[in-house]
Amino acid sequence: MSSLVPLPQSLVPVLEPYFPTDEKHHQTNRPFVTLTYAQSIDARIAAAPGTQTKISHQETKTMTHYIRSRHQAIMVGIGTVLADDPKLNCRYPGALESPRPIVLDPHGKWEYHTSQLQTVCENGLGLAPYIVVDSNTTISEKDREVVLQQGGLIVKIPIIGESVQSVWTSLFEELVRLNIKSIMIEGGATIINDLLLHTEFVDSLIITIGPVFLGKSGVEVSPSASVNFKNVKWWTGVQDSVMCATP
Amino acid sequence: MSSLVPLPQSLVPVLEPYFPTDEKHHQTNRPFVTLTYAQSIDARIAAAPGTQTKISHQETKTMTHYIRSRHQAIMVGIGTVLADDPKLNCRYPGALESPRPIVLDPHGKWEYHTSQLQTVCENGLGLAPYIVVDSNTTISEKDREVVLQQGGLIVKIPIIGESVQSVWTSLFEELVRLNIKSIMIEGGATIINDLLLHTEFVDSLIITIGPVFLGKSGVEVSPSASVNFKNVKWWTGVQDSVMCATP
Ligand SMILES: NC(=O)c1ccc[n+]([C@@H]2O[C@H](COP(=O)([O-])OP(=O)(O)OC[C@H]3O[C@@H](n4cnc5c(N)ncnc54)[C@H](OP(=O)(O)O)[C@@H]3O)[C@@H](O)[C@H]2O)c1
Ligand SMILES: NC(=O)c1ccc[n+]([C@@H]2O[C@H](COP(=O)([O-])OP(=O)(O)OC[C@H]3O[C@@H](n4cnc5c(N)ncnc54)[C@H](OP(=O)(O)O)[C@@H]3O)[C@@H](O)[C@H]2O)c1
Repeated sequence: MSSLVPLPQSLVPVLEPYFPTDEKHHQTNRPFVTLTYAQSIDARIAAAPGTQTKISHQETKTMTHYIRSRHQAIMVGIGTVLADDPKLNCRYPGALESPRPIVLDPHGKWEYHTSQLQTVCENGLGLAPYIVVDSNTTISEKDREVVLQQGGLIVKIPIIGESVQSVWTSLFEELVRLNIKSIMIEGGATIINDLLLHTEFVDSLIITIGPVFLGKSGVEVSPSASVNFKNVKWWTGVQDSVMCATP
Repeated sequence: MSSLVPLPQSLVPVLEPYFPTDEKHHQTNRPFVTLTYAQSIDARIAAAPGTQTKISHQETKTMTHYIRSRHQAIMVGIGTVLADDPKLNCRYPGALESPRPIVLDPHGKWEYHTSQLQTVCENGLGLAPYIVVDSNTTISEKDREVVLQQGGLIVKIPIIGESVQSVWTSLFEELVRLNIKSIMIEGGATIINDLLLHTEFVDSLIITIGPVFLGKSGVEVSPSASVNFKNVKWWTGVQDSVMCATP
């Protein structure tokens, strides 16, 4: 089922302290949140807006699936869905179940029934998404039907016109209600930049740095103010460096 | 003489292949060029224009002095001189002589006689600078006098209105004439961004990454096009990660 290279075993003890546990989860009234992405040296996560760029090595790709296997849900924004058409399942060998995909799509731009994720679910290779839209957004009958029939949901919360703080508060309350105890947030830039400024919503940060410059016109991760992290740990692979930290 | 913490010995074999040797030098008609700087995760080398920001850990500060000890010259642009008022000497224990400071100051903005570097030289703790100005720039009598008396030089080459390529070609020709076989270029952003696009002038790249986000209004290193590197090697210290590579 998997075409992934093996996980470098030296990564396992490095990552372990940054993973969700029941104990850590109970300290907050939201899911345990791991923010994770791959960037170039010059802090770009894609070479141009609306495109997908391969930054990380095969072994850190395997790492991503390993991290997915340790979370109940995985989240991306609609910008990422439209650029990457991602599968959002867990292909790590031995993982019991894929995480629940959560897509933040305030305006309902996604045509779910034409997506790769829809095919993945159709073929039983992943869970159907929870699509999070604004309270006043209506999504097409077709998409609603397919999502619900596959076991997914349309989740409505107030988004448009709300503050970042309020969107994340409502969203996490909803996820707790849906019994989601841990979530890995993979991007894209808008979501990451927002959360780096609201680290009260973040428990762990895992960043892969690939040895390339994508250049000034790339999609940048740099929050609008400075942010410090604690408990920093680096791991180095054949090509990439991985930084783990906590807010 | 030195208040530096000891050099982590594990760094020595990592850095060695990236240092100048006579053999490597003879392959080009310019000095061996090492480009080196410290950045945040979000590729900022200072928190705001015109300011200096401490990014790297004590042990990578020692590394910088160790790298200086392996080059005949050390270069920065006038933006860095005005922001940081740097000492530009080598305080690595046992280093025989400090490298020659080279300052790229096309318009002659620097008031050398008021600088820290001037005091360093006055006290015999470093070499006097070679100040590189445009052919049509005149610098003050006072500065000229102090620089020459301390053993430095005013170097005139065509800069204003010339292409980046042409400036670096003239500059390196001049340095070869002055018998400089290796140079470490430390910044700032303008110079680094230029050289990342002209890797024909670069032999080694050594970047320190500190685990902090300096934020969007920081001084950014990101070239205007994408750039790949080879022979990538990472080293990890107690706080920072260091990437070595060649173009
Ligand atoms: N290298 C990596 O690890 C990685 C990972 C993921 C993505 N990426 C890249 O990132 C790029 C996409 O980034 P992106 O910034 O365009 O997209 P994004 O962050 O995935 O999605 C942004 C969209 O989500 C909605 N949104 C997010 N936060 C919101 C909030 N607080 N309130 C209201 N709406 C909110 C908005 O949708 P509306 O505009 O509809 O309101 C916003 O435009 C792609 O190029 C992708 O390849 C890279
Ligand atoms: N973290 C680190 O490792 C590190 C290292 C060094 C510096 N820094 C930071 O970097 C910042 C300074 O960066 P910066 O970009 O302002 O300054 P810079 O690169 O030090 O100097 C830029 C100036 O040098 C001249 N110059 C450079 N290349 C030229 C070319 N090809 N042709 C003509 N002139 C050229 C120009 O002077 P004119 O404008 O007079 O023409 C230009 O404005 C400071 O905040 C400093 O703290 C950080």
